[in-house]
Amino acid sequence: MNDFVYYNPVRVHFGRNALEALADELAVYGPRVLLAYGGGSIRRTGLYDQVMAVLTEAGKQVTEFSGILPNPRMEKVYEGASLCREEKIDLILAVGGGSVIDCAKAVAIAACEEEDFWQKFYVNWEEPKAAIPLGTILTIPATGSEMDKDAVITNPVTGEKNSYAHPLLYPQFSILDPTLTYTLPKEQMVNGIVDTMSHILELYVSPPDTDCLTDELAEAAMRTEIRAARTALKDPQDYDARADLMWTSSFALCGMLNNGKKTDWAAHCIQHPTSALFDVAHGAGLAVVHPAYLDYICREAASRLARMAVQVWQVDPAGKTEEETAREGICALKKFFREELGAAASLAELGIPKESIPQLVRLTDLSCWSYRELTAGDVQKILEACYEE
Amino acid sequence: MNDFVYYNPVRVHFGRNALEALADELAVYGPRVLLAYGGGSIRRTGLYDQVMAVLTEAGKQVTEFSGILPNPRMEKVYEGASLCREEKIDLILAVGGGSVIDCAKAVAIAACEEEDFWQKFYVNWEEPKAAIPLGTILTIPATGSEMDKDAVITNPVTGEKNSYAHPLLYPQFSILDPTLTYTLPKEQMVNGIVDTMSHILELYVSPPDTDCLTDELAEAAMRTEIRAARTALKDPQDYDARADLMWTSSFALCGMLNNGKKTDWAAHCIQHPTSALFDVAHGAGLAVVHPAYLDYICREAASRLARMAVQVWQVDPAGKTEEETAREGICALKKFFREELGAAASLAELGIPKESIPQLVRLTDLSCWSYRELTAGDVQKILEACYEE
Repeated sequence: MNDFVYYNPVRVHFGRNALEALADELAVYGPRVLLAYGGGSIRRTGLYDQVMAVLTEAGKQVTEFSGILPNPRMEKVYEGASLCREEKIDLILAVGGGSVIDCAKAVAIAACEEEDFWQKFYVNWEEPKAAIPLGTILTIPATGSEMDKDAVITNPVTGEKNSYAHPLLYPQFSILDPTLTYTLPKEQMVNGIVDTMSHILELYVSPPDTDCLTDELAEAAMRTEIRAARTALKDPQDYDARADLMWTSSFALCGMLNNGKKTDWAAHCIQHPTSALFDVAHGAGLAVVHPAYLDYICREAASRLARMAVQVWQVDPAGKTEEETAREGICALKKFFREELGAAASLAELGIPKESIPQLVRLTDLSCWSYRELTAGDVQKILEACYEE
Repeated sequence: MNDFVYYNPVRVHFGRNALEALADELAVYGPRVLLAYGGGSIRRTGLYDQVMAVLTEAGKQVTEFSGILPNPRMEKVYEGASLCREEKIDLILAVGGGSVIDCAKAVAIAACEEEDFWQKFYVNWEEPKAAIPLGTILTIPATGSEMDKDAVITNPVTGEKNSYAHPLLYPQFSILDPTLTYTLPKEQMVNGIVDTMSHILELYVSPPDTDCLTDELAEAAMRTEIRAARTALKDPQDYDARADLMWTSSFALCGMLNNGKKTDWAAHCIQHPTSALFDVAHGAGLAVVHPAYLDYICREAASRLARMAVQVWQVDPAGKTEEETAREGICALKKFFREELGAAASLAELGIPKESIPQLVRLTDLSCWSYRELTAGDVQKILEACYEE
């Protein structure tokens, strides 16, 4: 087990009545609230009205910051930061999925900064001196942003989709009501499930291979996610299944599954450019890229992937080599993504022309890997495999 | 899944080099530190000198508060609180196991209080207005106190052993170095393993029974604890086993295993009077009381206990009733405690005369239960069963 630091101060309110906690959470902040949200689905579902009623009752002055799109871009962060400075915002309340929350997090530190936030945080990785406090109300279980300290932002000029992490980016509170996900379009639900599985795999498929609590917890989380996904696909209003999908996606990135592990993130690094250049949904891209990545490192990671096959996919290892067992596990993962969830099987299906591979390779961060060091040539081969169904 | 709030702001530094984090953690507090510890084992192991060197280097003025015994008593809390007020303490640094940390937590709130702390917190359950910040360096994995908001204190006058919980009791930081446990006497190691298993069982053996992430995590934690215990018993210096024992005991009570569950704590409530009256080590008492309690509720909790039998103890359920499977699981737990760990099998072995049962029953808090409401008569029968080996 590697040495680690575990710290996660987010206060989570979870359940059917979670929204009732909002009034108490709001009470400790000043009156000026930036309400950050996306397209308008929260208006259609009535959540917008519910939240506004609590804000009004609490005597808050609300500044709207809407229209945050998937794969949020740096110009939206500049817009939000300006609003925060102009309106002297005391609290940012992000209502939506990971894109809304990530954008709100970047706004929270950009607003306290005179220099260009992209250069300072996303290129130079400097420390923020302050952040506007942030609360979240989650509507899409997927990115884990409601419980982590990361924010992924896209720079459309350079095609970079970069992640920045700092303890000041932890939300002060996050409100998770699984019933809010009953009306999610199936595609968003599926992308969220793939994203959650991918997060767990990035942490689990990494050394050291010695048994440890963290590995057992990761396997528990994957089994739960798979079981809950199967139930929720059949019955989208199964509360327990929706609750497990929501809580597992937060748990996946709360830090508990990092403890003692090197962690990897290569699949995410390879997927990010497809979102930055082609605006592909993150989960949709991962459904193709992650299994291809595991296939590529299967020999080096055979012991770990064989363990996954047995513990998560109930592969019988009898009479098989470690690598054979491992490959059977990867096949089971692919089948789950494609046949059960209906996710895309190739980058072609996602509208990414094969000719773009060299450009995607150039934009891939090569610094993240675990069992096998990755070169540009490796990434090229992995992306090529993403066109074989 | 029940609604829940999850919040745990403790910063954990874990591993072989965890102690290196102490200097940075100390830097944000004022100069006056209360150094809380127990008998003197930290002097023998050299940990005292290491910690003092860091405190001295950091320019701290150290007030010693030593001699904290197992099952810490209220008079020790008064002593520590007086010291804190006299010396205007800025930070309490607790170095030891759960007794030292629990005592330090109670001191942290008692010192900020003019009224009698026992009456105010441990009898009336009122809110503390403030607490002196607390850091911990853990030497015995067992109680989880290094990562929870609870403090158990004994009142020797009334024979009560009460627990108080409040977010102000979370340590600011906890330093967990598994190598510090290499030299633990076997009895303390065993008591810690029993205590950890018992904590997980109090949370896991409680409704609702519907599948959820929390149940999978609890099973993962139990399997890890059992495997690590077996390894550490054979080789006390196996780093990975010691690390798993230490981290699992903290994880058990960090709050993650409470999420969505009713939780129980009846076994702890029945055990506490044996410690308060006979100064029996908490883990030693639990090794007898907890299996007896599970036996007693086995019919009502059959489905849950059968699940434990299969998932944790690999009992084959084929051809058995749920209750039969459940009872086989409880037998496996007893065998693990007694045959593998060498824990006591009866309260007689622990020097508690059977005649004390009525007194123990009178002191048992009957408010904690889950599958089956407990009366004084039930507790009497459970305690009587604790004399049948």
